[in-house]
Order: sequence, then C-alpha cells, then structure tokens
Amino acid sequence: MESCGIVVEYNPFHNGHLHHLQQSKAVTNADVVIAVMSGNFLQRGEPALVSKFVRTKMALKNGVDIVIELPYAFATQKAEDFAKGAVDILASLGCSYICFGSESGNIEQFTKTYTIMQENMTEYNKFVKRYMNEGFSYPEATSRAFKKIAPSSEVVDLSKPNNILGYHYVKAIKDLNLNIQPVTIERIQSGYNDVTLSPSNISSATSIRQTLFKAKDLETIKKQVPMETYEQLVTYQEEYVSFVQWENLWPFLKYRILQSEPEELKDIYEVEEGLENRYIRFAKESITFHEFMEKVKTKRYTWTRLQRTCVHILTNTNKDIMRERSKRAEYIRLLGFTKKGREYLNQYKEHFTLPLITNLSQADPEKIRLDVKAAHMYSFAYPNEIGQKIIKQEYQQPPIME
Amino acid sequence: MESCGIVVEYNPFHNGHLHHLQQSKAVTNADVVIAVMSGNFLQRGEPALVSKFVRTKMALKNGVDIVIELPYAFATQKAEDFAKGAVDILASLGCSYICFGSESGNIEQFTKTYTIMQENMTEYNKFVKRYMNEGFSYPEATSRAFKKIAPSSEVVDLSKPNNILGYHYVKAIKDLNLNIQPVTIERIQSGYNDVTLSPSNISSATSIRQTLFKAKDLETIKKQVPMETYEQLVTYQEEYVSFVQWENLWPFLKYRILQSEPEELKDIYEVEEGLENRYIRFAKESITFHEFMEKVKTKRYTWTRLQRTCVHILTNTNKDIMRERSKRAEYIRLLGFTKKGREYLNQYKEHFTLPLITNLSQADPEKIRLDVKAAHMYSFAYPNEIGQKIIKQEYQQPPIME
Repeated sequence: MESCGIVVEYNPFHNGHLHHLQQSKAVTNADVVIAVMSGNFLQRGEPALVSKFVRTKMALKNGVDIVIELPYAFATQKAEDFAKGAVDILASLGCSYICFGSESGNIEQFTKTYTIMQENMTEYNKFVKRYMNEGFSYPEATSRAFKKIAPSSEVVDLSKPNNILGYHYVKAIKDLNLNIQPVTIERIQSGYNDVTLSPSNISSATSIRQTLFKAKDLETIKKQVPMETYEQLVTYQEEYVSFVQWENLWPFLKYRILQSEPEELKDIYEVEEGLENRYIRFAKESITFHEFMEKVKTKRYTWTRLQRTCVHILTNTNKDIMRERSKRAEYIRLLGFTKKGREYLNQYKEHFTLPLITNLSQADPEKIRLDVKAAHMYSFAYPNEIGQKIIKQEYQQPPIME
Repeated sequence: MESCGIVVEYNPFHNGHLHHLQQSKAVTNADVVIAVMSGNFLQRGEPALVSKFVRTKMALKNGVDIVIELPYAFATQKAEDFAKGAVDILASLGCSYICFGSESGNIEQFTKTYTIMQENMTEYNKFVKRYMNEGFSYPEATSRAFKKIAPSSEVVDLSKPNNILGYHYVKAIKDLNLNIQPVTIERIQSGYNDVTLSPSNISSATSIRQTLFKAKDLETIKKQVPMETYEQLVTYQEEYVSFVQWENLWPFLKYRILQSEPEELKDIYEVEEGLENRYIRFAKESITFHEFMEKVKTKRYTWTRLQRTCVHILTNTNKDIMRERSKRAEYIRLLGFTKKGREYLNQYKEHFTLPLITNLSQADPEKIRLDVKAAHMYSFAYPNEIGQKIIKQEYQQPPIME
C-alpha cells in the first residue's frame, strides 16, 4: 500500500479541501491518504472553530484515511517550523508522497527555488536582515530578500502564502534528508485571506468562519462545505452550544496579561523587543480581542504572528520549552482512521520511526505537555460544564473510527 | 480633636457594625472615627461583595468620618499581619485610640495575655510546633499552645476569632511601640462564622451575604442592615448588575491554576508543602469554586487560609513581594471623608508619619503595585464593560465626600 500525506487544519473542512483531497489521490495514485491536522490552536494563532475530534470526523467522512494531530509545538509556528513538524511526521509514517496545494502548482519551481536559496544563503540572509531593520515584517522581508537573489521567472512567488508553506515542505524534506516525495497541485479556491464568500462555493475557511460568526446561522455557509461537514457542525452546535473564536478566550487572555509582570511575559515564546509592554498597555484599555489586536498591531509584526504570541501567552508556553519540543517531531498522535486506514496502520506500524499514541496515558508526559496544556486552555472557550467535557474527551476519547 | 481608629471590612455594613461604631464613639469620647477598611479582597480570602468606594459610602453615611484602605499586603493576611498593618496605619494618622469588638470585652485581659505570652514565648512556640506536627491547623495549634501556657481565667480565650484579632492589635501596638491606646467593647452580634440570619437583626456579614446570594433578593436582608446600606446595595445592583462572590472569579482562578507549572504556583505566597499539586489536581475536576474548596480542604489548613492562598494565586502575588510589602505600612490611601473628617485631615495631615495618597498617580508605583493588581483582578468578577468601569474608578475616583 502506498500512502500520500497532506497537511491540513480543516477549520472547518470545506469544498476546497475536498478538491485538494481528491486531487491528491488522483495525482499520486496512493491507496491511502494521511492527514496531519492541527489540534486546538491553528497556525494563524487562533483557537479551532470546533474540537479536533469533530474535525477528524469531517476528514474521515470526506475521504481521509488516517488523521494525526500536528503537535502544538509545530501547529502554532511560523511556516518554517510548521512545515518541518508536518513532513517529519508524515515521513515517520512511511508516506511515499506529500501533496500540497500551492498558487504555483509546479513542483520543479519549488526544488529550483530551494537550490537557488541554498546557493545564495549568505546574501539572502543579509537582505532579510536589512529589510527587517527597515521595519518590514519577517514574511515581507523574506519575500523581498528572495526577489533580490532570484528575480527569475522559474522560481516560486514567495509572496503567496501557500507557496511559502510549500517551499518549506520541500526545504524540510531536503534539510532533514527525508524519504518522501513532494507533489503539488494548483489551488483553485479563493485567496487564503479572503474574508467574504466566493460565489463559486469554494471559499476560504476564513471567509466561512467569518460568515458563520456574523450570521450566527449555519444555513449561510451550507453551500460552501460538503454535506458531512454541515451535518457535523449542526450536531456540534447542539452539543457544544458555541463555535469557538478568540473572543471566547479573550477574558482569559486579558486576565493573564494583566496578571503578569512584564518579565514573566518576556519569557513567553515569541514575545520579543518590548512586545510585553504593548500587550499590557493595550489589554488594559480593550474590551474585545479584536480591539486589542487593532491596537497592538504594528508594521513590524504580522497579525498572525501577534495572534500566535497571544496563544502562547494564553497557554503559558515559554521560550525554552517551545525550542526544546520543536526541534524534531517526537510522537504520532492518532486522532482517527477508516477501515482502510486501519489496514495501513496494522501493516506498517512496526516500521513507524516515532511512537504511535492512541491515548494520552501512553505518551511521555514531558513530550506531550504542550498539547495537554493547550487542550485545557482551549476548554475555557466553552461554558464551564462543556469545557469539562472537552477535557474529558482529550483524556478518554479513543481514535475515531469511521 | 481626638480620633478613634477602627478596623473594618464592611462587607456589607450591617447593624452590628453600626453598634460597634456608635459604642466606639461613646466609650472613647473621640471627636472623629477613622476606619481602616480592606479593599477588594478580604481577610477571609474572598473578593468584596461590592466595590470599596460603595463600602466607603456606607461607612460615611453611617457615621465614620474618614475611610482609609487597608493595603492588600495586610488585608489578605492571617490575624497577626492583618492587625499589624491596621494599627500601624491608625497610629500614623495620629489616632488616640483603637477600639475593637471582641468576645472578651475586657482590655485588661488582652494586655495580661500579651505579658504572659512574652514571658513564655519559647515554651509557647514549642507547643505550637508540636500541635502543627500533630496535624492541627495554625490557628488551632496556637490556641491549644496558649491554653498550655496560660490556663488562667484572667486571660483572653484565644479560640474566639475576634479575641484573636484583638490580641494581635494589642501585640502590634506593643511590639512596634506605637502611641495608640487599645480599647475593646463586647460584641453583641452573632458569631462571626454564622451562616444563617439572626432573628435579632444583628447578623454576621457572612450570613447576610449567603442569604443574599441564595435568595437573590435584597428584601431578604433589608432588616439586617441600616437603611443607608440597603439603598447603596440597591443602587449598586442597578449599576453593576451582580454582587461579587468567588464563583464570579472561579473561571479565572481555575484557568490560572491549570495554566501554571507547579514550580510557578510554589512561588505564590502561602503555597506551601505541596499545596500546588492539590490545587492543580482538584482544579481539573471541579466545576464550581465551592466544589474545589471542599476537595482541597484538609485538617492541616483552615478554609480561610486556603481561600487566601487562592486570592494570591488569582493576583499572582509571590512570596518575595508579599514579605517585602508587609513589613510595615508604607502609605495612607484615603478613600473618603465627611466634613468633620476633612477638618481632622486639614488640621493634622502635616503630622502624619506616612504619605497620604488621594490618587493612585501620587503613589510610589512599586509600593502600591499589589493594590493596583488586586483591583485589576477584582474587575474580572464583572462583565467586561463593567469591569472596565471598576478599573477606571480605581485610577480616577477622588476620595468620596459625604
């Protein structure tokens, strides 16, 4: 059996994801698709709309065979570390391919880009530093630096979000010398950052979430998602009352920021260059998370970078532990599988190069600590009793079988 | 002008407090009564039912002339430190007397007790240690130790809560060599710890609060408090929506406990002997604060001691800062005064031995830090917008004038 790995958030699973999934199967001709999926907090620095187990169900019902959790130490990181953790896990599972959507759609462009980057690393780093000093954000600086060293049309446009991620998948595979082949397909969905729905019924997850929070009615997004997603969302709403967004957690973030001494905040991962003072100052005067973010925002940092920092403050994740845990992937946490997925697991699990975890109690407590903490903190987005249920699930839910 | 100091919480001001206030004036014949009143958190380790400014109004309308805030560093301490801070402030204001209610009602008993204690300190400490080792709580151990060294009937019964406080007022005056005369009157109200209302209309503040939270109707306690208190509570409810109890703050305490590493909790004031592990373990499984406390409780620690520890966790108050700030009183924070109170202040303020603060901006930020932090944390007991109002008040409200 051959397997193809994909890296996903499914927040929630929508028509564009279905397209990517089907194309991944078609292009690689793999027997099994394995998704590495972010858990409670996402790369954009936001809590997940619904629990990871419900997102796992959406994945399995739509054709994914195995769902693995991307650990907190990678899921809430900038593209480079996010990608590294994801491919590391997929390779440890014996995946033959990783198939990602990109604006480019041309895998040669990615490998070419990698080669050029390797050959011009010193110059590239000099440019990044210069642009950072000029006040550009990190992604903006890297994109500009890259244009300086590789003006050619044969390389990937690294100002596009999915190209950036794709580049880092390829880079991680090469850097870590992993035995997995990268494949890319062109994205047909609307822009990653679009906030309004597309008339084509393939809209970004962002626009779907924003529409949902605004209209407070699942009907408004029904056409944007497969029926299985819609049904899961309906059930979820009945059972868990509310969908999760930053505003649910804002009172706790605000409390924690105002409770902290500046030196404590400085110890948190990605709190750099006096950010702690901005956070404290603006938390005092802000009623909502959105208001807070608008005030904290500077040209220097992207919105998502600042949101990720908020996640780390919320979860009390300091620099030391994050550096330690994000060196390499350390475990494979199984969230769910289909019948075919089970066959794959049974056939190959002896060869997995990382320990497979189907229950929290099997995990090394030190290694899984950030994920457990994240689950606890995520549970505060819900009313008290429902939050308890979320936590219970984290400890007791066996992998979902579909 | 002669002034008499009293130490109060007024949570809320009730008929028993009125009796104590009137008797204090009568017995000492003072021209002015100065109350040192706890701020946002109380000695019992609870958040105040209503804001300190409203409690100041209650005090002034009922006959207190000047209200001073007892700083957090003393207000949330065991009897010894609580009493030390309170008499230190009253003495710094030039009070001739401190008049406290006690079960004893006989001041000679208190001074005699102090003398006996001084003469038998070594033996007393030995007994305290022994009883603590046997597993008794600190107050229980001290009360038993005292009975060992002073079985006489001429001394104060140190198993009674108000006698304990009174003893510590007297002790602090002697130890710090303060120029203030202690006076005591017998308490006529029901037991400090009673949870049900007394038919006499003089009930404990505890029973009044519990009745209020249970019935959710101010009518049920109307007879237990002076009309001025009742009116203030009605206005408060209209303006601030809810009265404050631990349950309002429980989600934040729970969040903070679960967010912390054990070593961080260990650094918090009064977290001793592995308490951090009990807190973490039971916070995980508790839906309400009351449930949490029931589980955490051991014979070793009194309920109030454990509640105070919760306050320090909530406010992130560590051992170092608490020890530093509770050595001696460092400032006089004026919360309100009457016309007569103002005369006193104008006449004597040049002689006050501590800086008088009428606005937070005048205070040494380092010295006032715990009070500011406490105010911020207290504000989380209210809905977001109302919490902002509480904080604004903390920074901008000038002393109340009645």
